[in-house]
Amino acid sequence: MNDSTARAAASMYERYIACLNARDWGKLGDFVATNVVHNGHALGVDGYQSMLEQNYRDIPDLYFQIDQVVTNEGQVASRLRFDCTPVDRFLGVPVNGQRVIFHEHAFYTLREGKIAEVFSVIDKAAIEAQLKSDR
Amino acid sequence: MNDSTARAAASMYERYIACLNARDWGKLGDFVATNVVHNGHALGVDGYQSMLEQNYRDIPDLYFQIDQVVTNEGQVASRLRFDCTPVDRFLGVPVNGQRVIFHEHAFYTLREGKIAEVFSVIDKAAIEAQLKSDR
Repeated sequence: MNDSTARAAASMYERYIACLNARDWGKLGDFVATNVVHNGHALGVDGYQSMLEQNYRDIPDLYFQIDQVVTNEGQVASRLRFDCTPVDRFLGVPVNGQRVIFHEHAFYTLREGKIAEVFSVIDKAAIEAQLKSDR
Repeated sequence: MNDSTARAAASMYERYIACLNARDWGKLGDFVATNVVHNGHALGVDGYQSMLEQNYRDIPDLYFQIDQVVTNEGQVASRLRFDCTPVDRFLGVPVNGQRVIFHEHAFYTLREGKIAEVFSVIDKAAIEAQLKSDR
């Protein structure tokens, strides 16, 4: 590992997040491996795109903001912040159009410079706490 | 950033996790800054120790296993795996002595080689799913 490989991973990751925020699905394969696995599910790049499209249907104002990122040549770890309005249930929580702020912590394993495996955890407890405090 | 500083952070983190698993609270201050902040709460090292002691009361067989770690000179990101038996409620979920397997994704900011800030998310949805599947 050295500075330049870690920086290359960080740069790829920033462009990947920009791709998601632009909903530029035609470029998704530039960042995501064809056989990508997400939380143990072998989605492939098409399934990965379907997952993201569903995310945008569930949360029309979804926007990915990188709060903290740690990279080396083969891995990216990212703390992502969301400030958004899920229209219905989200993670089983009845958000129903309320604005919520929460984080996702994701670990990405890279192969040949692309995202090959993702493990993601979303702070469901934080979402639940915001609903409780407003009711 | 270079190899040696990232390796030093990784080494410190492995010794920190060993300290937790040994419940060796006398050494906690070797790894955790006196003014440590955890998920936005200024716990200090004493409050941090109290939090960990409460974790062990809630989960007597708690054991921290590092599944994936990404480091640079000033940050550690870690995917931790737990295979344990919370005695009562955990994160509000009525686990009540059932064995559950789940992950925590934690981001640590280091200052002067010690953990100064932690953002942690536990996969609550995974715990809930295991209870549902067994009932």
